[in-house]
Amino acid sequence: MSATPRPIEFWFDFASTYSYPAAMRVEEVARRYGCEVKWRPFLLGPIFKEQGWTDSPFNIYPVKGRYMWRDLQRLCIAQRIPFCKPSEFPRRGLLATRIACAAEESQWVPEFARRVYTANFAADLDIADVNVLLNCLKGIVQDPAAILAAARRQSAKAEVRRNTERAIALGIFGAPMFVAGEELFWGNDRLEAAFEWKQK
Amino acid sequence: MSATPRPIEFWFDFASTYSYPAAMRVEEVARRYGCEVKWRPFLLGPIFKEQGWTDSPFNIYPVKGRYMWRDLQRLCIAQRIPFCKPSEFPRRGLLATRIACAAEESQWVPEFARRVYTANFAADLDIADVNVLLNCLKGIVQDPAAILAAARRQSAKAEVRRNTERAIALGIFGAPMFVAGEELFWGNDRLEAAFEWKQK
Repeated sequence: MSATPRPIEFWFDFASTYSYPAAMRVEEVARRYGCEVKWRPFLLGPIFKEQGWTDSPFNIYPVKGRYMWRDLQRLCIAQRIPFCKPSEFPRRGLLATRIACAAEESQWVPEFARRVYTANFAADLDIADVNVLLNCLKGIVQDPAAILAAARRQSAKAEVRRNTERAIALGIFGAPMFVAGEELFWGNDRLEAAFEWKQK
Repeated sequence: MSATPRPIEFWFDFASTYSYPAAMRVEEVARRYGCEVKWRPFLLGPIFKEQGWTDSPFNIYPVKGRYMWRDLQRLCIAQRIPFCKPSEFPRRGLLATRIACAAEESQWVPEFARRVYTANFAADLDIADVNVLLNCLKGIVQDPAAILAAARRQSAKAEVRRNTERAIALGIFGAPMFVAGEELFWGNDRLEAAFEWKQK
């Protein structure tokens, strides 16, 4: 009998563009490798601020931003997932992050996260809007309003801060980030590499 | 008879870390796709300066730099090419770029470039050193000293500027960059995607 591999941590930020294709395929890749995924929501904003950025680097450097949107579009076409360039970027993912952090180990978090990403990057909806988030929760939790109320409590705020501080301690500087033991793998492009590392 | 695909342009900077694995494998990938590669040397320095960076972003953001060196090491191991973290980074690639630009369409440029990358990222040699560059030229050109003399002429300087300006006009903001028709593909990770695009 072979030992069950330790889970891969998938660190994501709801405003992060390349986290969208990663979120949509990480579970399928994990199944292929027979490995579990731990979804780890956090905020990139405070980390970017530490580096002196008060906006997304894709807005600060427009040439890079233009490339990224085209690249993301090509990736989504190849992955056969819908894509529509958001009319607002980056969107404020704080409330969605609070929801995901307050319920981090709950089974519905991955599906909730996929819905939030789809709202942002395929339906061009404002993920800071309470109604959009309630819709993302509908059908996957018993009481969406109760989940929302919990996310607004001080304890949920503390969970977000705790996760973001853990991200910083791990050396995380961008998203998506995959953590395999001591190894970091940055970007949707490194998703498979993270799971392959676990097999070694 | 199928049409010969238009060549892929491979834009590289000698100080660029991820250009090293790309330079070592681009010809092999091109052969697999039955496609020609045009090697396009340029300087990232002036482009970075436009963005307000006077040093490599991997030095400006040490957490990102630490990740990059580990990631590059893993890639080199997987690709079975030697790697040694350079004791100086970024190294001044100006003279090497002048050599490559002054002789851009010469057949020996790819081999020269691979030797310069190997000197920098595997042998930890100073690629700004004339003797290191003469060694890189030895055996692949008839008269290394004449090539060096040509690279020191004003016309070679103009060639470097011309290439760098063309890079900016193409929307290039980093290296390696692969250009397939109107499409840009950034990074060693997108090498195959650029060739696949040409087949469409």
